[in-house]
Amino acid sequence: MTEKLRIVQMGLGPIGNKVTQYLAERPNLEIVGAIDTDPAKVGQDVGVLAGLAPLGVIVTADIDAALGGGRADVVVLTTASSMAKVHDQLLRILPYGVSVVSSCEELSYPWQTQPELAASIDRAAKKSNAAVLATGVNPGFLMDFLPAAMTGVCRKVRKVTVERIQDATFRRIPFQKKIGAGLTVEEFYKKVEEGVLRHVGLTESMHLIAARLGWQLDKTEDIITPIIAERRVTTDSMVIEAGNVLGVQQLGRGIMGGEEVISLVFRAAIGEPGARDRIVIDGEPAIDSCINGGVNGDVATCAILVNAIPVVAKARPGLRTMADIEPITCW
Amino acid sequence: MTEKLRIVQMGLGPIGNKVTQYLAERPNLEIVGAIDTDPAKVGQDVGVLAGLAPLGVIVTADIDAALGGGRADVVVLTTASSMAKVHDQLLRILPYGVSVVSSCEELSYPWQTQPELAASIDRAAKKSNAAVLATGVNPGFLMDFLPAAMTGVCRKVRKVTVERIQDATFRRIPFQKKIGAGLTVEEFYKKVEEGVLRHVGLTESMHLIAARLGWQLDKTEDIITPIIAERRVTTDSMVIEAGNVLGVQQLGRGIMGGEEVISLVFRAAIGEPGARDRIVIDGEPAIDSCINGGVNGDVATCAILVNAIPVVAKARPGLRTMADIEPITCW
Repeated sequence: MTEKLRIVQMGLGPIGNKVTQYLAERPNLEIVGAIDTDPAKVGQDVGVLAGLAPLGVIVTADIDAALGGGRADVVVLTTASSMAKVHDQLLRILPYGVSVVSSCEELSYPWQTQPELAASIDRAAKKSNAAVLATGVNPGFLMDFLPAAMTGVCRKVRKVTVERIQDATFRRIPFQKKIGAGLTVEEFYKKVEEGVLRHVGLTESMHLIAARLGWQLDKTEDIITPIIAERRVTTDSMVIEAGNVLGVQQLGRGIMGGEEVISLVFRAAIGEPGARDRIVIDGEPAIDSCINGGVNGDVATCAILVNAIPVVAKARPGLRTMADIEPITCW
Repeated sequence: MTEKLRIVQMGLGPIGNKVTQYLAERPNLEIVGAIDTDPAKVGQDVGVLAGLAPLGVIVTADIDAALGGGRADVVVLTTASSMAKVHDQLLRILPYGVSVVSSCEELSYPWQTQPELAASIDRAAKKSNAAVLATGVNPGFLMDFLPAAMTGVCRKVRKVTVERIQDATFRRIPFQKKIGAGLTVEEFYKKVEEGVLRHVGLTESMHLIAARLGWQLDKTEDIITPIIAERRVTTDSMVIEAGNVLGVQQLGRGIMGGEEVISLVFRAAIGEPGARDRIVIDGEPAIDSCINGGVNGDVATCAILVNAIPVVAKARPGLRTMADIEPITCW
């Protein structure tokens, strides 16, 4: 890789801006374009938006202007969690023959959940000889790729359990709000019903694991419950009364032949003890792997998006997932 | 994968026979041939050699007889740890257009250590539109692939440390002998000089990690020392006097810019405390991942060889390594 890869950053929310920072510090990458529909961002320098010195790249709302002329090799797409939205954007991006790395959670393994949209993206990518990959720390790595890869040394696997336990006490306030910290239980369930309080990706992670193990799941479940304060809890930013919500527990269950063969346990709450990323494989050999303290999600998601770029740039054309792409490493 | 993959097992030592057992239990594989040069094995049923019921496949010493007629898809090659030996065998196998999964430690990442032989195998594989991969639990997985893959969520990596600590007390007697248990220190170093007491692969593992991180190492070191009994130790199979050898410590050091940026610590000894497979990444984020008790090497090496088959069967032609192949999982 003597030539620099030319990158267009599309979607300049918190993740997109952080990605810009990471892109700018890699000597083998060059940011050649930036796209966002927000009128407040259009016309600004993408470096300045990311809190850096100007990079000489001005944000446009016009995909065709940014990608015309064949200046880009890879688009980093950090616009939405929803597959439907990202599908329409991809169908405008891919004809330019550029590959795409995306943070879209639903795109991380959409073959079971949204097969028509997945097939449509796959066709468009192959037609343009480009590859598309959605990844992130979770979904993408901790609760799907890593446990699947761990089974590589197993003769047999009976069950896969993954725990991602996070203490939100010292996380950003938007993260604390996202997990429902400080809400009443009623407010919590209202937000769950509205679909705004939910970690997106557990179902996709289960399907990735099952596909790689050759398992035909009968069904998957994704159960959200609040973690409730037993006594008043005070943090730097809020007071949570006893009986109110410290955070969220989300349980992914993959059922095959009446047995729970995949268990994904996601907990993020104020004061949550035992922060960790743990993988337990009930198999031969049995494996119990633990990252004590867990992996910081904000850094890790942006890092794996940037680390994926050179791998996606030379991947087989089509819609790839973490289940069928060469290893992504820091480089 | 509706059609069964047709496998030829070449090399029927302890690893080869165990691989036969694992091959035989996979519904998507069919053993169609078996090769070994040992006259005591030729003419025997490969299943019987592996302690199973007869499989109807008779061992031959003749590579051309086993592979002629295009009956095989993949050869599992478990003949030697030496790249030179395996090179000559591969140059006879590959023209049949079959892909190869091998346990050869030196072949796991030979691009720095034996570049001419590596290039020769790569050319032969590409010419026959076949892929070659050497893997195993170590080298192949625990001390190279897994730490490299863990860096995928890192923005920066300053140092990678991997510890593989094994308590040999309850392992097979050949394993205990292999690590020097019961020898005097003099005998230990004599065997090291003869090259018979040595874990093969630390250097290859360091080169795999460095290559994936884009690091140009100044040099690598591979230092073997005995672990010595402080008092008499008695096991089921031997008595080790104080001052004699409990096992081996092997230290891989990868140096860049005068700093040790890769540390691989391999210890296997009778009564060794704290058995584990641990990965510590000094980076952003920092990662400290530990498999307490460690991974059983006998099962794991044979399992990953078998698990690699479907991935290698559809891999890009050429000499592949665990650094540039799609994920291997139990299936």
